[in-house]
Amino acid sequence: PSAALREQARAHQAQLTKPAGALGLLEDLVIELAAMQHCLRPTLERVQISIFAADHGVAAENVSAFPQAVTAQMVDNFARGGAAISVLATELDAHFEVIDLGTMLPSAPHARVRRERIAAGTANFAQDAAMSAAQLASALGSGHAAVQRARAQQAQLFIGGEMGIANTTSASALACLLLDAEPQALVGRGTGLDDAGLAHKISVIGHALDRHRPHCGTPLEALARVGGFEIAALCGAYIAAAQAGLPVLVDGFICSAAALAACRLQPGVRDWLLFSHCGAEAGHARLLEALRARGLLDLQLRLGEGSGAALALPLLRLACRLHANMASFAQAGVSGRD
Amino acid sequence: PSAALREQARAHQAQLTKPAGALGLLEDLVIELAAMQHCLRPTLERVQISIFAADHGVAAENVSAFPQAVTAQMVDNFARGGAAISVLATELDAHFEVIDLGTMLPSAPHARVRRERIAAGTANFAQDAAMSAAQLASALGSGHAAVQRARAQQAQLFIGGEMGIANTTSASALACLLLDAEPQALVGRGTGLDDAGLAHKISVIGHALDRHRPHCGTPLEALARVGGFEIAALCGAYIAAAQAGLPVLVDGFICSAAALAACRLQPGVRDWLLFSHCGAEAGHARLLEALRARGLLDLQLRLGEGSGAALALPLLRLACRLHANMASFAQAGVSGRD
Repeated sequence: PSAALREQARAHQAQLTKPAGALGLLEDLVIELAAMQHCLRPTLERVQISIFAADHGVAAENVSAFPQAVTAQMVDNFARGGAAISVLATELDAHFEVIDLGTMLPSAPHARVRRERIAAGTANFAQDAAMSAAQLASALGSGHAAVQRARAQQAQLFIGGEMGIANTTSASALACLLLDAEPQALVGRGTGLDDAGLAHKISVIGHALDRHRPHCGTPLEALARVGGFEIAALCGAYIAAAQAGLPVLVDGFICSAAALAACRLQPGVRDWLLFSHCGAEAGHARLLEALRARGLLDLQLRLGEGSGAALALPLLRLACRLHANMASFAQAGVSGRD
Repeated sequence: PSAALREQARAHQAQLTKPAGALGLLEDLVIELAAMQHCLRPTLERVQISIFAADHGVAAENVSAFPQAVTAQMVDNFARGGAAISVLATELDAHFEVIDLGTMLPSAPHARVRRERIAAGTANFAQDAAMSAAQLASALGSGHAAVQRARAQQAQLFIGGEMGIANTTSASALACLLLDAEPQALVGRGTGLDDAGLAHKISVIGHALDRHRPHCGTPLEALARVGGFEIAALCGAYIAAAQAGLPVLVDGFICSAAALAACRLQPGVRDWLLFSHCGAEAGHARLLEALRARGLLDLQLRLGEGSGAALALPLLRLACRLHANMASFAQAGVSGRD
């Protein structure tokens, strides 16, 4: 991001007909977008939403309230327009695509679904490493390729989303490794576990961490040991977006875990990330803290699919319009402070 | 609001392809809108934004960082499209009007400005009652009339906004009377007072409350003693909207004080109010607590003008679209919980 544009945008904000700082976080956001887009009046008309879907071997440990078949079923639902993120993408006039990185059951062919299947889900990380180094490279590459498509579309913002039954288990384990934390502090109810289910999930993750921790000295090793194809793809996408100078709006808990992995791999990635919300999952606030970030929304969301980022997009767009279209004190003939 | 529609909408939400409750506060909001609009799939396409502007005699006590001339200047700025709420109203395709209830300096004639001037500002409530009973009735009536215009436009949502230099002083005093609280707990920096300015504002309000409290047994007496024309108009508008069954999206601190006055006058008003945000002004959270409300946004906004409500509107609209357009588990062939 450009420090010069950041200062120009800040000076422009200070002239608009409102008390200084009266638009709160929206002022900070638009100033940062100006620095990212190298443009005094940033815009977010062209947005790409890429949803990465994959299954997780650890679902065999009964860590989710939903059966594993739902991942492929939801890929179909994304494509046919019935899922939350499909409805939001239409309303927001965003470019929307789904990338099947490996569901257990095959998803139906559909023009909106890219089939970049790595395997029929990861291995069960309660027993083995979730994926091989080659599989990790493929997943990172799928994320990278999604950002290249966004650039080809001249997208001004990239939103990544995810779908994968049991992927809060994977993201929680990854967060524990990256933050050197115990699962009690980070693990939540996912799609809706009860107390017993939550205790079991914590136990499964705890035992898996005992097994994998000695082999997770780097973020890539942690991703391969306990991550998912979609989580690795998001990590790859965030790194590619930063390299391309494309702003990213990060969704919820799982995306934030991928974002932290990306920032640990390349600290410069952080400068290109905006954070849409702090959701209901227990570890989300801890991840945002580690990323020195504050979410724009706090609506107790826990859906994933990129839906929190999509919901925050209108606020960012309005912030851009206010910044671009409000009159200055001089233009409007309004007196400044006494 | 209709209890039957509330239950129908809740049952419909439970069938949509997402974990129960995964859209958090947005689910509660759309269910409540369904009950208000007597409609399983509520919509918020037609929205009226009415901005009430008036000056405050208490500005003579140096309680604002901006000169009193700004009120009329901002009325012109609203009308010509340069203010934040003007930009937002355009982006949101809302019906937008400004009602001049009495600025100190005259505002320029403009098609978008209704001139319903009661006086060239209220009296200084540090010395006298802010307004007479007749003036209070006029202000309440202006609010009522704005809602009748909204109904004539077939509005599905009413947003009120306010402009008036020193009106956080008036709203803070009103909140102290309604909540039986001391100013230290409720008074904030308004448009940007420094520490000395804040202490002075608290002192001015404290002395005025000593004078007026014995005469403020009812919410109407409190409004007349320390309120403003625009605050009374908002109170009248909220009561009229509830009577008409028109949902209201309440803006910030000043609108919340008017909303509390309205609910004290007629408790049934509360059922028709949605709350857009919790702003930066100190007393806002206290008012929301008294109203048993939670704001949708928390962006450290402190602009007024209805801007916080306008910024929250896209979230409500998206919540309606998700509710209306998402597929059910049965439609999409997605499995439910194990």
